[in-house]
Amino acid sequence: MALIEECEALTKAFSGIGVDEKSIISIAGKWNPVQTDSFRKGCEFFADDGHYHAFEKWDNDYVKLLELEFSRLREAVLLWTMHPWERDARMIKESLIKGPKWYGVIIEIACTRSSEELLGARKAYHSLFDRSIEEDVAHRVTDVNRNLLVALVSSYRYQGPKVHAETAKAEAKILANAIKSSGNELEKNAEVLRILTTRSKASLQAIFKHYKELYGKNIEEDLNQDDLILRDTIGSLGYPHIYFSKVLDKALNVKADEYTKDALTRVVVTRADIDMKGINEEYQKLYGISLSQKIEEITRGSYKEFLLTLVARGN
Amino acid sequence: MALIEECEALTKAFSGIGVDEKSIISIAGKWNPVQTDSFRKGCEFFADDGHYHAFEKWDNDYVKLLELEFSRLREAVLLWTMHPWERDARMIKESLIKGPKWYGVIIEIACTRSSEELLGARKAYHSLFDRSIEEDVAHRVTDVNRNLLVALVSSYRYQGPKVHAETAKAEAKILANAIKSSGNELEKNAEVLRILTTRSKASLQAIFKHYKELYGKNIEEDLNQDDLILRDTIGSLGYPHIYFSKVLDKALNVKADEYTKDALTRVVVTRADIDMKGINEEYQKLYGISLSQKIEEITRGSYKEFLLTLVARGN
Repeated sequence: MALIEECEALTKAFSGIGVDEKSIISIAGKWNPVQTDSFRKGCEFFADDGHYHAFEKWDNDYVKLLELEFSRLREAVLLWTMHPWERDARMIKESLIKGPKWYGVIIEIACTRSSEELLGARKAYHSLFDRSIEEDVAHRVTDVNRNLLVALVSSYRYQGPKVHAETAKAEAKILANAIKSSGNELEKNAEVLRILTTRSKASLQAIFKHYKELYGKNIEEDLNQDDLILRDTIGSLGYPHIYFSKVLDKALNVKADEYTKDALTRVVVTRADIDMKGINEEYQKLYGISLSQKIEEITRGSYKEFLLTLVARGN
Repeated sequence: MALIEECEALTKAFSGIGVDEKSIISIAGKWNPVQTDSFRKGCEFFADDGHYHAFEKWDNDYVKLLELEFSRLREAVLLWTMHPWERDARMIKESLIKGPKWYGVIIEIACTRSSEELLGARKAYHSLFDRSIEEDVAHRVTDVNRNLLVALVSSYRYQGPKVHAETAKAEAKILANAIKSSGNELEKNAEVLRILTTRSKASLQAIFKHYKELYGKNIEEDLNQDDLILRDTIGSLGYPHIYFSKVLDKALNVKADEYTKDALTRVVVTRADIDMKGINEEYQKLYGISLSQKIEEITRGSYKEFLLTLVARGN
């Protein structure tokens, strides 16, 4: 291979999510110092201002890039071998530390786990951090979402199939009225909070179904498009397979930000033994490509192999 | 494979230096949660007190172990693609931050690089950290070794082959007298400092040769066995191939501490294009096994492949 081709191959090995260990070893391991230097200089686009900074910016960016992409397999294996309760507890803690952008992880865990699983995470949180999840959420979340988040992580929803049809219909109307009257401040509406945080998932799915029958639109379409917290809550409670498919698709994009990309490991690891089959089917329906094919395309190396193994468990 | 065999195989995948990504993916990726749990419980020996701590100590130890072993390939690739000057500058900085136990790295760099290479590292240090190596060393090192270390990193030794035989013989005697009279405080002896930090390597090798002829022993044998700083200085200046072979052999031991193990990546990466052939030969002579065979035995996965590729460059 000519140097230019090798540079391209190595750039590719570093370009996806994860790293292609084999190519790195076979190419970089055989270069002489001049070749290594050429590769490093060819990477100058990593610097924000587009210039090569031999001993400054460039190298710090490069180091950060390497650390992040090399760490994906480790993070995945670590999460995978952890007990699911501990895993959820640790992910909630980490999201609270990282700040508002990451609160979607708390919603995902609170809304897609079974009642027993969420309770397990709450127990694990006690043991790990000597406090409760709701205590930390109430303390850390200082904006309009506090009440919603505290109530979501505190819920222990009835899980049976029984749904009271009349109540569901009535509550679909309550939601519709609240959306009309509250607009951007829907999170402050006590009735909306009550319904989303205490009703069983079967009831909520019935409520959202009635909503569509009554008003001709999915409830999400009537929500403020910027209200990610409320959209994630309704999506993950009402249509988890669609919700997870959308999260995965956004994550499978090299240019996505780290919060978005991080979901790839999280969703694959946490759903592998739960509902990966359903997510797979929904993903294929929504995007016309199988989840495995998309992972094959975007991710690299051992990280890719691990994700594919976990996704295949669901079939 | 039965569960017990799989547990053993996975324990092996995690047991060396580096991790065997392939085994981890093929075994852990296929386990059910009960099997994963069994493996985790089987790892209780990671806790200091020998007990299983589901949500406490054990997991933190496990996380640390994973982070360390998974990071070896990344560290190796990172060091390998760095410019050698920058690499040395960064390693010196890191050693100063980590503290006295790590000062051996500073000695190794100061004593085994060519005069131009050491000067390059000093230039890179200016650019990276806005100060000089000697400034940081003088500021951080507060014990008896300060003068020795400052002088070693400041040296720009003559590199030609010319050696003044009479002077060498006289200075061998000066060293012998100093060892006799100074004992444990040899670092404070101005003549010892002058000789070790300013004489060319060719001269020092002649001095050590005369020492052996005059006194029947290698100079290291007459030093205090606990004086690692002085032993490393003399070893790396006088017999670099033996010095590196010994450092590598100590590093190729799963039970070694992190300072000792860390040398494996450092020495292989920094010597691959310099004197790996000589180190290889010396290693075979000292330990009756080739360096590659020993690496094959002790290290794991992609990290192993990368080290073997770099070692093979020297042949």
